[in-house]
Order: sequence, then C-alpha cells, then structure tokens
Amino acid sequence: MPEVTTLVQDYIASFNESDPARRRELIDRVWADDATYLDPVMAGDGRDGIDRMVAAAQAQFPGHRFEPTLGPDAHHDRVRFGWRLVSEADGATVAAGTDFGVLTGDGRLRAVTGFLEAPAA
Amino acid sequence: MPEVTTLVQDYIASFNESDPARRRELIDRVWADDATYLDPVMAGDGRDGIDRMVAAAQAQFPGHRFEPTLGPDAHHDRVRFGWRLVSEADGATVAAGTDFGVLTGDGRLRAVTGFLEAPAA
Repeated sequence: MPEVTTLVQDYIASFNESDPARRRELIDRVWADDATYLDPVMAGDGRDGIDRMVAAAQAQFPGHRFEPTLGPDAHHDRVRFGWRLVSEADGATVAAGTDFGVLTGDGRLRAVTGFLEAPAA
Repeated sequence: MPEVTTLVQDYIASFNESDPARRRELIDRVWADDATYLDPVMAGDGRDGIDRMVAAAQAQFPGHRFEPTLGPDAHHDRVRFGWRLVSEADGATVAAGTDFGVLTGDGRLRAVTGFLEAPAA
C-alpha cells in the first residue's frame, strides 16, 4: 500500500508538473511503457501519448492544480482514487473524478479509466 | 446508455436470483463467456466461475439483497456503478461498493473490478 500511495502521489504530481522534463520523469516512473488512459474527454496511448495528453490538460486549465481526494484504495493489481481540479486563485473546484487503474507486476500503471463526477448542485 | 442501464439491472438481478437456472440465464446475458470478476474478497473466471461465485455470495448472505445505488455511468466501453447489500428484514445496509467494468462490442461485461466502500461511521 505505501507503494500505491507513492504511485498515486506521483501520478497527481505529473498532472501538476509543467516543466516538460520533470513531467516526463514522473510519467516514466508512474506508467508502463505501453500504458493506456481513457476518460470521457481525454485519451492517451503509451508514455508518449499520455505525456501529450497531460500537457494538453495543463494548457486547457492554466492556474489550476489537481489534488487527491479519496483513496488510494487498492486490492490485487487494482486501484482506485479520487481527484479534483481546483483553481489556484480561489480554491474553487472546477472538476472532480475517480480513476480506476490496473497495475503491472512492477507497480506501474498499465491502464487507467477515468470517470467524472457530476458537478455539485 | 439504455443498454448499459439494462445490463446493470440484469447484473444486480443475477445476484438476487437464487433459482440456479434463472440466475445462469441472467449471467449468460450479462457476461462474456471468458469474463472475469475480481474484488477484495471474491473472484470468478468465466461464466461458470462467476455463477459459482454469485451462488457463494448468496449462501453467505441469506435474507439479503443487492440494490443499485449510483449510476450506471458509462463512456466508451467502460462503466461504473454503485451497489449496496441490504437486509430484507430491516433494510440495514451491510455492505456497499462500486464496480468498474469493461464492455465487449456486443454490450456484455468482459471484466469487472469491485471495490468495497468503508462502512459508514
């Protein structure tokens, strides 16, 4: 479980790391080389594709950062965790979701599916 | 989305159907032949293995039934939904979880990972 906690911390950190070299270092640490990511609005194939996807998410939401919410909750080679995207200016939550992942034997993410939470009323 | 809603209804119904023939009919409708299920306490491989797993869950919780809670929430070939296990005697919730699934092209479940929610305080 400590390894999974670190993995999810690094995953979140990669979304917040705008320096391309440091972001890629986190992505290489977190993801299997042939990993896949899929949510309702974004997709990435392989570390290269996921790196481009994360860069695009950063470009779409300047002045925002991702924060962990729930978990990580892991069993066998599976994990889930919650996140939210908050404005650095006023702390407002602009999006939130839950990610489900399948791990490789060496503790990297092989596949992640993201779901978005309905906005709070 | 109507298809996914029906799929999840049939999935929940299969857990509540104690007649073996009718339960298997639901399982054949819901699951791909080579499907897999994995949660922290149960696992099933293929329709036969999943049928045995559901029968074991029913034997472990007589007088209880599964009810849907959240969702289903689907995108691409992915779905998540919430459930709870309630006592038929007093309606008390004895367990709850979220299931995450990958669908086949013909709208059956190929793989489901279940996670259990922490009991309410």
